[in-house]
Amino acid sequence: MEIDVVKIDTKKKKLCKDSVTEEVFLTIHLDGSEFVTLLCSPGKLKELSAGFLYSSGLIHSPDDIEKMYIDSKNMTSQITLKDKDLSADVIFKRIYTSGCGKGMLFYNVLDLAHRKKVTCAMTLQSHQITVLMKAFDKKSAVFKKTGGVHSAALCNDEQIVSFHEDIGRHNAIDKIIGDALYNNLNMADLIVLTSGRISSDVMFKVQKMGSAVIVSRSAPTDLAIKLAKQWNVTLVGFARGKRMNVYSTPERIV
Amino acid sequence: MEIDVVKIDTKKKKLCKDSVTEEVFLTIHLDGSEFVTLLCSPGKLKELSAGFLYSSGLIHSPDDIEKMYIDSKNMTSQITLKDKDLSADVIFKRIYTSGCGKGMLFYNVLDLAHRKKVTCAMTLQSHQITVLMKAFDKKSAVFKKTGGVHSAALCNDEQIVSFHEDIGRHNAIDKIIGDALYNNLNMADLIVLTSGRISSDVMFKVQKMGSAVIVSRSAPTDLAIKLAKQWNVTLVGFARGKRMNVYSTPERIV
Repeated sequence: MEIDVVKIDTKKKKLCKDSVTEEVFLTIHLDGSEFVTLLCSPGKLKELSAGFLYSSGLIHSPDDIEKMYIDSKNMTSQITLKDKDLSADVIFKRIYTSGCGKGMLFYNVLDLAHRKKVTCAMTLQSHQITVLMKAFDKKSAVFKKTGGVHSAALCNDEQIVSFHEDIGRHNAIDKIIGDALYNNLNMADLIVLTSGRISSDVMFKVQKMGSAVIVSRSAPTDLAIKLAKQWNVTLVGFARGKRMNVYSTPERIV
Repeated sequence: MEIDVVKIDTKKKKLCKDSVTEEVFLTIHLDGSEFVTLLCSPGKLKELSAGFLYSSGLIHSPDDIEKMYIDSKNMTSQITLKDKDLSADVIFKRIYTSGCGKGMLFYNVLDLAHRKKVTCAMTLQSHQITVLMKAFDKKSAVFKKTGGVHSAALCNDEQIVSFHEDIGRHNAIDKIIGDALYNNLNMADLIVLTSGRISSDVMFKVQKMGSAVIVSRSAPTDLAIKLAKQWNVTLVGFARGKRMNVYSTPERIV
């Protein structure tokens, strides 16, 4: 959105119009109970809601959602799940026992215990990553305008098939997950691109998708690398131009 | 920490050693109950714990903490508060009613309702900001080495008096708050510098500190600007070299 800003350059002051990125609070209600509030960019809230539930291990497909109503005036996402075992009371207990911050990431303890190695035999060449990241950077239009958002994408070995932006790097990933769910994309066959740093919470989402390769323009943390090795995921960081660092499972880059 | 990495540059592959930033899970226990888990950088966990409780409106000074024990083996922070009204049971109820994500930000509803405009009469010149940001960038040693952390600092109009780094931009701010609390710094007289984007949650922390000026190398969101205007805080973004954008209360920059 357009706002007034005082631009200062070598002591000269100038009042101008400029674009800034929008931020909203989206509250997800599950079966009538308030569940979580996300700080996010407006837009693609259906994908964000579904992606968040999926990457948190609460749903396995859009079919698990009986209905979803996005109220964009009050910024709520009202979701009814088919499986009442996953109803809000049970989930809140899980949050209570495992702590709030941790609970936000993987409150479905059963789901977490069943995480497996990625077995995908995908291979790709480093120049394919270079080409994909070039297309990815080109698409990041909101970032260029406001400098305030992160991007995430899903691609096959030739092109981007899903692209979303959000002020939160986690939300951008949840939006591509939601998009993949609604469009029946097989996430396990696709490469994840992100503009943001790769921390352990991002790895939890990627492994949940079953993706074998994640590429970032930025840095990973040591814990993210540990998880990538454990789950057999190829983690590429600092992918800029023809350069990149492969931190885990480099066999897939031939 | 040092790890093995396959560096690729124009198709050439090379196995090297490289530094990556560390990430840990710190679980804060309040009066014996698990309260929240933060993904953070190891180090300055006492400051992080106290800063988090302060910026969330749970304590007003280090005196509100009866004792704190940092168990760096199990990565827990065991805190006993003096005021038992703020005990874990009460807080968990608040999280339950106001939603987890929102609860993480300002679960102390009473505290939030009492937020006031910043009345500080501080003024400063744009070249002072340029000098401070230059010193700030210079200090960001971990970032330069690993590319994986955010920095935050408190400064008077001449120099940095507190500087901390963390993989989370919120944690870096909580660490400078904790530092200020333990060293009796008057936060209301100090300028906040951050490497990260300024979203509404960062503004909630800054206003809690009573600081009149926040400067970032990155972009703000529209909601952060709205809050800065409402609370009379000078919000400066894109402070790079001699350039900067003043989004709110520009009267303080003379």
